[in-house]
Amino acid sequence: MPRFMDLHDGFGGVTQEQLKAAQAADWAIEGDEGVHFEHAWLDPEAGKVFCLSTGPSKEAVMRIHKRAGHPTAEIYELPIEVS
Amino acid sequence: MPRFMDLHDGFGGVTQEQLKAAQAADWAIEGDEGVHFEHAWLDPEAGKVFCLSTGPSKEAVMRIHKRAGHPTAEIYELPIEVS
Repeated sequence: MPRFMDLHDGFGGVTQEQLKAAQAADWAIEGDEGVHFEHAWLDPEAGKVFCLSTGPSKEAVMRIHKRAGHPTAEIYELPIEVS
Repeated sequence: MPRFMDLHDGFGGVTQEQLKAAQAADWAIEGDEGVHFEHAWLDPEAGKVFCLSTGPSKEAVMRIHKRAGHPTAEIYELPIEVS
């Protein structure tokens, strides 16, 4: 299953509880598109969120984020990784 | 230990082996600054790399990347995460 990273702006000052609530909104509906959000990281000073997910396509990931109330246009497919 | 995500452009067409070599150059010297690069993901079409690390400061992470031959100015501190 392809892996993706998507980015969100405008999350300045957001707390852990608020990020958890945003993630929960994705998790509640992600199965509709065969998407799974694995991890989200937040820089509350820059207001930037990074979301790592798997799913069938970029468009599927973006539809879930949009329906969950936090749309984004910035997403990358990540066929190569090293750890 | 603070966690960071830094971004690199200009990696279009880079292979898994080349990304591994770039990561190895970081790993070889990261201990000098108390930094550890945990994971790197690459979108070879967009030429974008995301590096997840821990370290004492943004500046320490950036110094290691610069010495390893792939400097970047774009880095975020990530005190909040959800998975």
